[in-house]
Amino acid sequence: PFIIQEELIMRNSFQYVSKTATKSVSEFEYDAPSMKTAVPGPKSQELLRQLGEIQNVGAVHFFCNYEESRGNYLVDVDGNRMLDVYTQISSIPIGYNHPALMKVMTNPNNVSTFVNRPALGILPPENFPDKLIESLLSIAPSGMRRVQTMACGSCSNENAFKTMFIWYRNKERGYANPSEQEVDTCMINQSPGCPDLSILSFMGAFHGRTLGCLATTHSKAIHKLDIPSFDWPIAPFPKLQYPLEEFVRENAQEEARCLEEVEDLIVKWRQKGKPVAGIVIEPIQAEGGDNHASPDFFSKLRNIARKHGCAFHVDEVQTGGGTTGKFWGHEHWGLDDPADVVSFSKKLLTGGYYHRDELKPDKPYRIFNTWMGDPSKNLFLSEVLNVIRRENLLEVVTRSGKALLQGLYTLQTQYPHILSRARGQGTFCAIDACNDATRDSIMIKARNKGLFMGSCGEKTIRFRPALVFKEYHVHQLLNILNDVLAEHK
Amino acid sequence: PFIIQEELIMRNSFQYVSKTATKSVSEFEYDAPSMKTAVPGPKSQELLRQLGEIQNVGAVHFFCNYEESRGNYLVDVDGNRMLDVYTQISSIPIGYNHPALMKVMTNPNNVSTFVNRPALGILPPENFPDKLIESLLSIAPSGMRRVQTMACGSCSNENAFKTMFIWYRNKERGYANPSEQEVDTCMINQSPGCPDLSILSFMGAFHGRTLGCLATTHSKAIHKLDIPSFDWPIAPFPKLQYPLEEFVRENAQEEARCLEEVEDLIVKWRQKGKPVAGIVIEPIQAEGGDNHASPDFFSKLRNIARKHGCAFHVDEVQTGGGTTGKFWGHEHWGLDDPADVVSFSKKLLTGGYYHRDELKPDKPYRIFNTWMGDPSKNLFLSEVLNVIRRENLLEVVTRSGKALLQGLYTLQTQYPHILSRARGQGTFCAIDACNDATRDSIMIKARNKGLFMGSCGEKTIRFRPALVFKEYHVHQLLNILNDVLAEHK
Repeated sequence: PFIIQEELIMRNSFQYVSKTATKSVSEFEYDAPSMKTAVPGPKSQELLRQLGEIQNVGAVHFFCNYEESRGNYLVDVDGNRMLDVYTQISSIPIGYNHPALMKVMTNPNNVSTFVNRPALGILPPENFPDKLIESLLSIAPSGMRRVQTMACGSCSNENAFKTMFIWYRNKERGYANPSEQEVDTCMINQSPGCPDLSILSFMGAFHGRTLGCLATTHSKAIHKLDIPSFDWPIAPFPKLQYPLEEFVRENAQEEARCLEEVEDLIVKWRQKGKPVAGIVIEPIQAEGGDNHASPDFFSKLRNIARKHGCAFHVDEVQTGGGTTGKFWGHEHWGLDDPADVVSFSKKLLTGGYYHRDELKPDKPYRIFNTWMGDPSKNLFLSEVLNVIRRENLLEVVTRSGKALLQGLYTLQTQYPHILSRARGQGTFCAIDACNDATRDSIMIKARNKGLFMGSCGEKTIRFRPALVFKEYHVHQLLNILNDVLAEHK
Repeated sequence: PFIIQEELIMRNSFQYVSKTATKSVSEFEYDAPSMKTAVPGPKSQELLRQLGEIQNVGAVHFFCNYEESRGNYLVDVDGNRMLDVYTQISSIPIGYNHPALMKVMTNPNNVSTFVNRPALGILPPENFPDKLIESLLSIAPSGMRRVQTMACGSCSNENAFKTMFIWYRNKERGYANPSEQEVDTCMINQSPGCPDLSILSFMGAFHGRTLGCLATTHSKAIHKLDIPSFDWPIAPFPKLQYPLEEFVRENAQEEARCLEEVEDLIVKWRQKGKPVAGIVIEPIQAEGGDNHASPDFFSKLRNIARKHGCAFHVDEVQTGGGTTGKFWGHEHWGLDDPADVVSFSKKLLTGGYYHRDELKPDKPYRIFNTWMGDPSKNLFLSEVLNVIRRENLLEVVTRSGKALLQGLYTLQTQYPHILSRARGQGTFCAIDACNDATRDSIMIKARNKGLFMGSCGEKTIRFRPALVFKEYHVHQLLNILNDVLAEHK
C-alpha cells in the first residue's frame, strides 16, 4: 500500500508538489496536516492543568488523541492533525495505528501474552526461544547470537555495563572463583568485590538517566545536576564540520585528536586504579546535538578498545531500527568486527542488548530482574519487522532521507543567516538554527502550521520520522518549514 | 465467583480437606494440581537447550503454557499443572488469565493504548490524568497526591533516589539557581555539580540491580560482585526472633541497637562529606530472607530521618499491592506521616513512585525518560483494582494469610529439626529450613507434587501467592508440604 511513484515539480523557490499526492497516501493514513487551534489548544491546556496536580508537566507539549492518529500524523485533543517527525522521541517505528499492529491485538492467540506478563528469567513462555529467533535474532548485528531483553533503554545500558564489568573482572581473575575477600567486600560496596572499574564515554553523549547510565551521559546539565556520579573518563567527541565530504581533511584531524585523547584517558585511568572495562558510544550522538563521526573514527576506536582490552559497546537506542537506512547505525561503518555489545530500545519496542559469546554471564542471577523485558513487546516487534521487510522500509528511509537532506541543504542555502550544518543519515537528519531562541521559535511556528519536530543539543532541530515517512511527507515538511522561514524576521 | 464457604476437617496429623472444595473453585480456575512428569519435563528441557544458545538459562525453572494457566494454577509445557505460590516473583496480582483482564484486551476502545506507546512525559494521551486518578491515585498512600510512573522496579527506585537528591540539594542551596560551577562540574561527573550525597540502606535489603539501586542492595553477593558501587552507609537490619509476639523484649533491644547505628552512620557520613539525602527501606525485607521489623522500629526510623533532614523512602515493590492484607505494607505501621517517597512495581503491573508535594522536581526533564511507564499497564491496573474491591481480596488475603501462617506454625512444631521461624503478614509468609540444601530439596520435591514455591535469603522458603489465593488453596499447599516433609529423611 505504501508504494509511491513521486513526480516532483519545483514551484517558485521551494514549493514541491507531488502530482500523485492523493494516490500516494496509504490506505489508512491522512493526506495532510489540518490545524484547528494554536498548539497547545484549549483542551490540552485544561488537561495540562489537571496533570500538573499530579506530575511536573513542564516538558508536556500537548495531549494526544492516539485513537485518531494515523501513520505519520499525530492528532491532538483539540482536533489538530500534525505531521509528526519526532514520533514519541523516535520510538514509533511504523506510524500510528498501523493495521498490522492492530491485528496483533485482535488475534485471540496473543491475548494471554498481554494478560500474563511472565518473569522471563525463571519461567519463560513456550514460544520464547522461537519469538526471539523470529524477532530480535533475525536482525542481530554481525557476529552476535546472544540477546537479553530489558524493559527500557536505561535498563538495557545499565545491564550492558554490568555485563562488561563482569567480563572484565572474570578476565582479570583468570576465570577463577572470586576470593572470599571479594565476596565479603562486595556486600558492603567496597573493592575488590565492587571494583573501581570505569566506562569511558564521550562529551555530548546520552546513554540514559539511571545512575550508572547517567555517569556516561554528558549532553545537558539539567540531566545530571545534583545526582551523585562516578569518576569515569570522558573523551571529547569529534566536532566535525558539515557537509562531511567538504571537510574531509579537517575532520580527519579532529577525529585523530579525539582518538589520541581516548588512548591517553585509558592509560591515565588505569594508572589511577580505575581501569576502563568498556567504551560506550552512539553511532550518531542524538540528544547531544546530532553529532556525526566517520566510519574511520569508529573503526580506529574499535581497535583502541581491543588493544587495551576494553569491551566496545555501541548504543543503538536511538540510531537502531532502520532510521539511518540500515537496520543498525553501526552497519554504515562496514567493519567485520564492529562491537562487543549493542544495546537497543525505542523503535525496537522492547529494550535489550546483543553481545558476543565471550561476554555471556558466567552464572545465573548476575544479569537479572523480575520481568527481563516483556514478551508482548516482542509480538509487536515481530510484526514491525514483517512490515519493514514487506514494504521495503529501509529503502523508503534511504530515499526519503536523501530528499530530506537535499531539502535541508537548499533551505540553509536560502536562509544562511538562520540555518546551518544540515546533516543526516537516512531520515536521521538535523539542522542547526543560529541560536536556541530562533530554533525554539521556528519549532513553535511550524507546530502551529502542522509540523511537529524535536530538538536536541543547544540549537539543533532533529528529524526522527517513522520508517513509513515517504518523499511525499518530506515535501510537506519542507513546505511548512520554508513557509515558517520565509515569515521569520 | 470467588466467594467460598470453607469447612475444614483435620484428618490425621495434617490433612485438611475442604468439603466444599469443588464448589469453591472459581468459574475459570482448575481445582487442583495435576502432574504428568517430573519438573522440568522433557519439553522444558528441550526448550532450555534452545534458549541456552541465546541466554544464560541457569535461573530458568521450566517453560510455561500461559494460555492454559488459570487463577492460582500455572501450567507448564509438559502439561503439569502446579499451584503457584511464587507468581512470577510476586508480580501476578489476581491469578493467570483472569476474565476481567481478558476483557480489557478485547475491548476495542483499548486497542490504541497498546499499539501506540506514547512518550508520556511530552505527549500524554487524553485520558492520562483520569486513568492515573482512577488507578494509582485511588490507592495512594496517606499524604501523597503525586505519582510518577516508570517501566520497572529498578527504574522506579533509581528515579526515587534522584528525586531525593534533587530535593536535598535544592534545600541546601536555599532553592536558589545552581552556581555556574555546579552546572560546569556536573557535566564531568564532579562535585559540587554531582555532589557526594548518599542513600542509607540496610544489610539484607534488595532495591534492584541497576547501579544506583545496586548500591543499596545487600542481599546476596552474586547480585553485586564485580559491579562498581558508591561508598554509601549500610545499617544493620534488625535480626528478630519469631514469633514476634514471644520475643517482644529481645526484639525491641535488637531494634534499638540498629536504630542507634543508623544515627551514628548518618552523623559519620555527614562528617565524611557524603551526607545522607535519603533512607530507603522495605516494610519486609523480601529477597534478603523475609526479615520483619516492628511498627515501632519503622516509626522511630521515620523520626530519625526527619530529625536529620533525610527523605524517607519506603520501597513497596514486593510488599505493595495487597499481599500483606493491606494495600501497602507500611500501612501496618499506623503512622500518620509514614513516608516521603513510596515506590512500587510487580503486582501494580507498572513501576513508579508516589512522593510528597515537597519532593516534586522543580524543573522539567530532571526526572524523565522516553516512555515514563506504559499506559497499557495502567489499563490493566485499573481493572485489577476493580477486581480487588469487588471480590474483597484484601479480606481474602488476611483470611488466607492467617490460615497459612497457622499451618506453617503447625508444620514447624511437627518438624522442628527441619523447619523454623515461620513468619508472615497476610499471605506474605515465609519459613526457614535447617540449611540451604534441605530448603532446595523440599522445594524440588514439592514442585514435583504440584506446588511451586520461591526461595529467598540463605535458607528461606517464601510464599507469594496471588491475591485470589483462598483458604482452599492454603490447604492444598499445606497438604503437599506436609507430604514432602513426612517423606524427608
